Formats: sequence, structure tokens, C-alpha cells
Amino acid sequence: MYAFSNAVNSMHSEDIKRLLKQSSGNNMISFAGGMPNNDLFPVKQIDEIYDALPINLKKLCFQYGAASGYPPLVRSLKSYLHKKGLPIDIDKILITTGSLQAISIITQEFVNKGDIILTENPSFVGALSVFETYEAEIHGIPIDKDGIDIEALKQKIASLDKTPKLLYVTPNFHNPAGIIYTPERKKALLEVLSNTGIILIEDDAYSDLYFNEEDKYLTKPMKSYGLADVEIIYTGSFSKILGPGFRLGYMLSSPEIFEKAETVKQALDACTSNFMQILANEFLSQHKLDPYLKFLRFEYRDRKNILQQSLIKYMPEEVIWNEPKGGFYIWLKLPEYVSSTDVFKESVEKGVVFVTGRTFDPSSKKDDRIRLSFSNMPKDTIEKGVKILSKVIKKALKSIPSETV
Amino acid sequence: MYAFSNAVNSMHSEDIKRLLKQSSGNNMISFAGGMPNNDLFPVKQIDEIYDALPINLKKLCFQYGAASGYPPLVRSLKSYLHKKGLPIDIDKILITTGSLQAISIITQEFVNKGDIILTENPSFVGALSVFETYEAEIHGIPIDKDGIDIEALKQKIASLDKTPKLLYVTPNFHNPAGIIYTPERKKALLEVLSNTGIILIEDDAYSDLYFNEEDKYLTKPMKSYGLADVEIIYTGSFSKILGPGFRLGYMLSSPEIFEKAETVKQALDACTSNFMQILANEFLSQHKLDPYLKFLRFEYRDRKNILQQSLIKYMPEEVIWNEPKGGFYIWLKLPEYVSSTDVFKESVEKGVVFVTGRTFDPSSKKDDRIRLSFSNMPKDTIEKGVKILSKVIKKALKSIPSETV
Repeated sequence: MYAFSNAVNSMHSEDIKRLLKQSSGNNMISFAGGMPNNDLFPVKQIDEIYDALPINLKKLCFQYGAASGYPPLVRSLKSYLHKKGLPIDIDKILITTGSLQAISIITQEFVNKGDIILTENPSFVGALSVFETYEAEIHGIPIDKDGIDIEALKQKIASLDKTPKLLYVTPNFHNPAGIIYTPERKKALLEVLSNTGIILIEDDAYSDLYFNEEDKYLTKPMKSYGLADVEIIYTGSFSKILGPGFRLGYMLSSPEIFEKAETVKQALDACTSNFMQILANEFLSQHKLDPYLKFLRFEYRDRKNILQQSLIKYMPEEVIWNEPKGGFYIWLKLPEYVSSTDVFKESVEKGVVFVTGRTFDPSSKKDDRIRLSFSNMPKDTIEKGVKILSKVIKKALKSIPSETV
Repeated sequence: MYAFSNAVNSMHSEDIKRLLKQSSGNNMISFAGGMPNNDLFPVKQIDEIYDALPINLKKLCFQYGAASGYPPLVRSLKSYLHKKGLPIDIDKILITTGSLQAISIITQEFVNKGDIILTENPSFVGALSVFETYEAEIHGIPIDKDGIDIEALKQKIASLDKTPKLLYVTPNFHNPAGIIYTPERKKALLEVLSNTGIILIEDDAYSDLYFNEEDKYLTKPMKSYGLADVEIIYTGSFSKILGPGFRLGYMLSSPEIFEKAETVKQALDACTSNFMQILANEFLSQHKLDPYLKFLRFEYRDRKNILQQSLIKYMPEEVIWNEPKGGFYIWLKLPEYVSSTDVFKESVEKGVVFVTGRTFDPSSKKDDRIRLSFSNMPKDTIEKGVKILSKVIKKALKSIPSETV
């Protein structure tokens, strides 16, 4: 069994966990947490919804629900997913206790100890932790600014002596890499998987959080492409568009996969909270999501812009990155000889935290990256944080690494 | 993978599921659902709590929390469990998404495919479903009115060629059997397990729902007995004392078991809903639980009394049962030659549903029992339901079974 740390700080090194613990409660500037901003939650909207709930619906909040989900929420989700072009007439929706539970269910459904799972490298640490808990053999495939490396993926599949069970990807506003796949890359990925029997998990927690309308078309899910010869399980979450505290996610899959998943779901926690599902359903059905998303996109774009400008202003030229088109993250690239874990140790002493690159590497090695999350950052501390971090990095660049002496 | 039905109706026969589906929405009298009464939930109390929540706490409701649970709720639970005599200073509390998740976590932590789990026969179907999902080999041990059959348990353990991993019991107001273990039986059970290496899961969802103060001492958990040579994991739930819709449960275990369990928990759904935990914590810390429990005990006792009186009035003498001292259930015993599934088929047509005996048998065989749940029953329909059911049973008693011709 594999020990990993709190989902909030999205790290799995005991060392870093300890450092973060020491630092919490101080005036630490944190680029670490991959969570939404406390001050941006739709508290007022949920207050209004709760106050107006009829008594019968309130009573239902307290009761058990169906394992597959609260039927009105399933209907609301259908219409939400239909707008994304997803095949909601044939495939079925299972409501889960957060989208991590969906990943857990899929893993339990398809993966036995020692089975192979392919992921991006870097990849979402929550998913990596699930795969490791189920004792899968994880192989990471590199990504570039346009998506997963197609040649590397082909070679990996060809080199393995058994077929991987799953490929897990987060194509839209990747955590941690901040990229979005191009449509061409999405198509190429589907072509590689075609008729291989490898099930694709398309995890899409961030697609509503694009910064500019003209980039919206990029978020179109692969599952909406209509390719029949790749089995795709699409997973989504309310964590980024309502709040992680609701623990609401869902998966959209073929009826066959749905049916087994429902059984696993029932054994994991019987059903998802009616209370949370009823509030979420009112949020969707009362058309509160669209105006709220408009507000969120503006707020997160604003933070991204400040971070981007600050990085341009302060970072040495050896540090490079792609400006994200949406999501929560900027993924800095350091020269190979600088370890982000070393930078972290110095940086935390100076009052700035982030998540180290190797946290997101399935083999916990590659460490020339820094994940900066701007989502939960007060706007007026971003520049200050970058200034401090850039100083630490500049110092690290100057110290000639021992291997190169 | 094993298919089982909705936790609400607590049944796992497809046949019965179909019949119930047909019957829902009509004027069916249902003794089936093992859920709390919709009209008894503390809606008003939670309204007051929600309305008075300070804005910072409301924002926290929407955010991620620690995998092990919301610290103030852990503290409130400590004081709640301390009153039950439980060892909260040494052992650790893990908050789970319902107590079924605790059972799932424990199973994932300790049980591999083919490992042996001992349960009572009959046993809680939710737990049986978990054990079957993890492909354990389940052995049921009979119970009588005072608890698990000690001789049968000893013989079972002696007869097995490998040590069972777990023994799962629900000693207080058993579901479905309605019994409570005597203190002597609890002690005898611990003696049998002593130094065997078999971990005891003491699942205690109903202990607050005793009907009379003088029976309260019977609910004392085995984990409070202070025996060091039996490893006990105590699981509890907010489902019966607040509402299943909160999906809140917990487990109390040794620090070693806790640590691994926290890792599994994190891979299952990252953390339990802060929203639900914060409301539950206010419910406990504002001392709203005790007066609410007083009210609940009165209401459920009232329903039990009506059911008990109606059974005495209408049931033929061949049908026997124990009057419960708490909980939700009366467990009727039919003569061996009458199958409760046959009774069910007739009864559902006459407008009365219940759960059949074999639903609770790990091997789905023993079928001479009927579980009547009085918890979610309007008081004024209990007598009518019993009248109809007794007619169906009388008819079944008259038809001579083919085996005995």
C-alpha cells in the first residue's frame, strides 16, 4: 500500500508534507493548492437555493438515494453534457462522490494487481494514487504543449508484452501542465487507441474554465468525436464549478460499463449524498451555472494574467513556460540540472510554497518542473510571491551542480 | 462481480427488485425500507444551523478537507464516543462517507480475493455486498436472541484451514434480527477471538435508538471492554441519528489501522464532504443531538409498540418473533416449510411489501424469515399492513408443502 498525502496540497513526498505543515499558519505565500478560491464560491446562490427549498425536498436531502444518483440531477447533467456534444442518449451517467471516486470505481472494475495503466507524464496525482492503491503498473507517456506524445505512446504500447487496461488523460487544462490538447492531437490519440482494447479515461474537470471564448472549441471532449472503436469513459466534477466540498462527480460510459460501475459504487458508499445532489441540481436547473461560470472565468483569467506578467517581469530567461488558456496552473520548466525539490526547500524558508515537479511523475523522478497554482491566490500577493521565487531560482541557477563539475 | 440492488430496499434478488419497482408509486404499505422516517429528520435544527453559520465557515463548506476528516467534527465525535466508554485517547477516528465506506476501506485494507470473512447469519446486506465485491469467502454463523452462537463460531474457526481475516457483527439492535447481544455474549465472543488474529468489526449504527433507558447499558460497545488481545474496529454512522443523506460515518481503530485506512480513504474519494461535516459538527457541538435522540426514541418506540400489538392481534401462532428493545426491525419466524419469498409474491399483490429472509443469508438460502421495518411507517397504516400480511401467511400455512406430501 502506497502512502500519499492530502489531496489539498496534491503532493506525495513526506518531506515536503512536513515542510508544508511547518509553514502553514504563517504568512506563507502559497502557489501550492490546486483548489478553487475560497472567496469565489457561490455561497450566496446556494443560500438562496437552500432557503427556497420546499419542505419535501428538504426532507429528501436527509434520506438515502439511488446508487446511480438523484434522478433530477442526472437529467440536469444530461442537458449540461448534451451541450458539450456528449452521447447522453446511448451512454449512461453515474453520479459519484467526487470524480476521484469515478476513477476509483473504474480501476476497481477493470484493473487487477499488476495490470498496466498508461498515464500522461506528468499526471494528476490523485489518479496516480488510486492506480497505486490498486497496485497497477503505471507507465507515464510524455506530453508536449499540444498534448500527449503520439510517437511515444505508440512505442510504449508496442513495447509492452501485455495490453494496458486503461489510458488516463486530462486533455483540457491539464493538471499540472496547464496545456490543452489541440483537436489534431485528440484525433491522433483516438486513432492510436482504435481497436486496441485499451479503455480511455477522459478526465475533464476544468473544461468550463477557459479564459477566452475563442478557445472554447478546444475543450470539445474526445468522447463527442463519435468514434465507435475506442471505448471512452468520460469523467467530470462539480469541484471546480461549484465546490469540492460538495464531493460530486460523475462518469459517462457505455451501459455495460455503467452497470458494473453502479454495483461497485454501491459497495463503496451506498449512494452519493442526496443533500449535496439536491442543492447541485437546483443550481443547474435554476440556470445559475452559466452566469457563475462567466464570473469564475473572469476571476481566474485575471489571476493568470497577473501571474503571467509577474513571471515575464522577474523570471530569469533559463525558466520557460506556456501561457495557459484556462484552468488553474502554470508549469515552469527549469534547466535539467536544477531540482525543483531543492528550490522548494529554499523557497519555503523564504515564505513561498508550490508543488515540485516530481510529485506528478508516476516514477517520482523527473524534477525540473514547478507547478504554480494561481486559483486560490489573492491577486495582490501574486507578484510578491513570484519575486521571491525568482530570487531563489536565480540563486539555484548560479550554484554549479556537482555532477557537471 | 456480484450484482446487488439499492441499499434503500436492502434486497438483492432481481426478482424482488422487479416486484418492488412495479409496486412503488402505488398505495403500497411498505415494511421494506430500512431507512429512517422522512418526517422525523431534524430539518428545523439544520435550518437553524445553516442560517447561523458564519460566512467563513460557509466558504469552508465548499472547500476540500483533510482526508481523515474535518478536525472539529473529529473532536466532537471524540467526546460523543468517550461517553460510550470508547478508547478515544489511544485509538484514532477516521471520518468516512457513510459507515459502509468504512467497511469498504477495512475490507480493502485487509482482505484479498479468496480470504475468509465471518459474519452473522443473518447479516446486514450492505456489508455482505462489500465482502462479495472484494471476492471474499463469506461464512455465516447463526445467531439466537442473545447474540452470535458461540459454539458454532468456535466450531467454524476450528474447521477452517486458514484463519479468517475479519468477523463482522452488528451487536446492537441487529439488522435484520432486531436483537441486542447480552453483555455475557459480548464477553464470550471476545474470549473466542482472543489471540486468534481475527479482526472484529463492531458495527454500531443503532445503539442510540434504545426504547427504554433501563436497556441503555446493553448497548455498551465491546471495544469499550478494554481487552487488549482482540483487535476491534468500531464503526458508526450518522445515518440513523441525523440522516443517511449526509453520508457520514466513521471508524475508530488502532493508529496503525487508521494510518493505512486514511490512505485507502484518500484513494476512494479524497475526503468526505466538508459541507456535511460542518453541519453535523454544529449539530453535535451545539448539543442538539441529545434532545433529538430523546424525540427519536419516543417516535420509534411508538411505532414498534403498534407493530408489536398488531402482530399479537393478527398473526397465527405458528409465527414467532422477539420484541425488540431498540432499532428499526422485527424479525418474524415462519415454520420451516413456508418460504418468505413465496409469501412476498402473494403479499405484494395484496399491497404489502417487506424484505425476505434469504436476502440476509450470506448463501441466499435460509428463507423462513420476514423482516418488518417499522421505522419509515406511518403509524396509522401499521395495523392495516399486519392484517393483510397475516392473511397471506395464514393462507401459506394452509397449503401443504409439496415436500411433505
